[in-house]
Amino acid sequence: MSVYQATASAPVNIACIKYWGKRDTKLILPTNSSLSVTLDQDHLRSTTTSRADPSFEKDRLWLNGSEEEIKEGGRLATCIREMKGLRREVEAKNPNEPKLSTYAVHICSRNNFPTAAGLASSASGFAALDLHVAPSLVASLHGRWAQLQADGSDSLAVEVAPQSHWPDIHALICVVSDDKKGTSSTSGMQRTVETSPLLQHRIKHVVPKRMKAISEAILAKDFDTFARITMQDSNQFHAVCLDTDPPIFYMNDVSRSIIALVTEYNRVSVEKGGKLKAAYTYDAGPNAVIYAPKENVREIVSMIVKYFPQAEPFKDPFGLFANQTLTGNVVEGFNAAVAKPFEVGAVKGLIHTRVGDGPRVLGEGEALLGANGLPKVVA
Amino acid sequence: MSVYQATASAPVNIACIKYWGKRDTKLILPTNSSLSVTLDQDHLRSTTTSRADPSFEKDRLWLNGSEEEIKEGGRLATCIREMKGLRREVEAKNPNEPKLSTYAVHICSRNNFPTAAGLASSASGFAALDLHVAPSLVASLHGRWAQLQADGSDSLAVEVAPQSHWPDIHALICVVSDDKKGTSSTSGMQRTVETSPLLQHRIKHVVPKRMKAISEAILAKDFDTFARITMQDSNQFHAVCLDTDPPIFYMNDVSRSIIALVTEYNRVSVEKGGKLKAAYTYDAGPNAVIYAPKENVREIVSMIVKYFPQAEPFKDPFGLFANQTLTGNVVEGFNAAVAKPFEVGAVKGLIHTRVGDGPRVLGEGEALLGANGLPKVVA
Repeated sequence: MSVYQATASAPVNIACIKYWGKRDTKLILPTNSSLSVTLDQDHLRSTTTSRADPSFEKDRLWLNGSEEEIKEGGRLATCIREMKGLRREVEAKNPNEPKLSTYAVHICSRNNFPTAAGLASSASGFAALDLHVAPSLVASLHGRWAQLQADGSDSLAVEVAPQSHWPDIHALICVVSDDKKGTSSTSGMQRTVETSPLLQHRIKHVVPKRMKAISEAILAKDFDTFARITMQDSNQFHAVCLDTDPPIFYMNDVSRSIIALVTEYNRVSVEKGGKLKAAYTYDAGPNAVIYAPKENVREIVSMIVKYFPQAEPFKDPFGLFANQTLTGNVVEGFNAAVAKPFEVGAVKGLIHTRVGDGPRVLGEGEALLGANGLPKVVA
Repeated sequence: MSVYQATASAPVNIACIKYWGKRDTKLILPTNSSLSVTLDQDHLRSTTTSRADPSFEKDRLWLNGSEEEIKEGGRLATCIREMKGLRREVEAKNPNEPKLSTYAVHICSRNNFPTAAGLASSASGFAALDLHVAPSLVASLHGRWAQLQADGSDSLAVEVAPQSHWPDIHALICVVSDDKKGTSSTSGMQRTVETSPLLQHRIKHVVPKRMKAISEAILAKDFDTFARITMQDSNQFHAVCLDTDPPIFYMNDVSRSIIALVTEYNRVSVEKGGKLKAAYTYDAGPNAVIYAPKENVREIVSMIVKYFPQAEPFKDPFGLFANQTLTGNVVEGFNAAVAKPFEVGAVKGLIHTRVGDGPRVLGEGEALLGANGLPKVVA
């Protein structure tokens, strides 16, 4: 008897131009175009195995070791239904194809980064399902420097540039501790669409200009413009969250302090006649993603570690500190008073990565479901 | 020989519809209309004595016991120059009037609340100078429920309603500790005008509707509408600060938690079929001002104290807890998990006050300058 099972890994995407709010919550069509960067799966990835089998009684999902409920009418149920619909079209055209669309599926997904990092893990998890339905998914699939269009009847991802175009762009993820339970991004988005007087102005008058300018900046490898727009758009996204009734906050005092540090780091460079050297961006959570050309990452890690002492040694995947000790430090001319040093644990971890590739199909050896169709036990 | 000296006290004003950004920085003409509430001077006031004397060598100012520099071209220098100009007009019409406009002035001002509270103390200090120039000043002078117009050639304060119209509205000020040096509101405003794409939309399309609606709500004593607009406008003001490049933050994690508490407190009321019971608002700092009908203040104080334990006993000017101990408590049905309890000192103090009157002229006994024209030594 045949086993209908596939395993794939998908990257994390971080948006530089954010979309927030949906025109269609079932199909997850966004209210505005967005632009995202795919990060390297060598450092951050979601691996997912899915199997369709006539012996399965119902659709089931395990996320990072725990079974999750598939809620009627929820995002996941919609994805599975759409996936089965696409499969049905294939089966209709080729009557010899097995009728997988009539089987229940088991899906097992696992991230290699802390779920608490809140790094669009749902998007990367869904991407690995290979469904071609949700835009977050589509953006993940097409990866690299991808633009997600919202101005037609379809929600389409367009590649602005391949990974190889600008491999010099690195990312430092600051995993920020947060005591507070945040607003889920799905319910938050709808509240913003319904209540923020500023959101429509952003969608109609701000995002289109920024999409054009940042795409040009990426093609021209103009980091200064890329950084400026990325930071402005992160801030405007959080501004419309705050303009929501009741307001939504994702950034906390640690996030604010990282913004102050990057702002001062850039100010020093500009004052010396240089350009912007780093850009922060925040998704629907307190974690910072700092983009920078590789040559600046050493200074940035030193600066972050000075204000946010780390419990664990820095995993230095690119050998920035190969021959030296990592000591907290700021560049000459830096006003150290722009932020106060925090306790160990305020930034729980630092992940250094870079622009990466799209989803990868993996072999059976990397499958997460065992022969019995249930998750393998992980040591 | 005559002594030309006057002493007055002025209240603190808290804006419900905020203005942010100036069309004319010297005359401090605002970019949009605003609406503010005058708080009771029995609890919060600035007292100022000013004297003009031919023996004084230059204009001097003491604020809360320390001499402040009067910077050329700065806000204070402008106020003093405008004041002397008005005096000159009086002298031109009445040749018998002493030529005070040619004398230097000594000004001594003192708040009865912590300066760190950041409660528009500059506005109330200036108000006591009786200058009739700066709009913040004008709003202070006319007090009560005042509307500050920005749509004509003049910047004029209009009384929406006198204090006696709605005396039931009380205010609880939560003085929030902040380690960070914030952005001065004067420089912050200009940066927002220059860089925020959302500010102009707010000025043109959001504020006019809110001004009309909140004025009607005040006249109708409709606290539900008043509260909703006040909270929305506070959030939108901080949203345009965040939309500034680089972004401006005034609220911190303590401010965010107070918002979460008030939001939950209102949610419980609405769920029970009631209306909004409290409204928060934040000026250019982390302190919360919570407006509420007097009957709700007891519940609100109990709620705040539960999450923000106080080092000092609550000064209970209205006898809310006259016969009971103040214990931290929330109303039935309240989800206690919306915020986490903070350490003692996160909220440094609670000030309970209410809607109040305009400036008061005080007697010589309350003068802050001694016979020698210098500040009296305060025990």
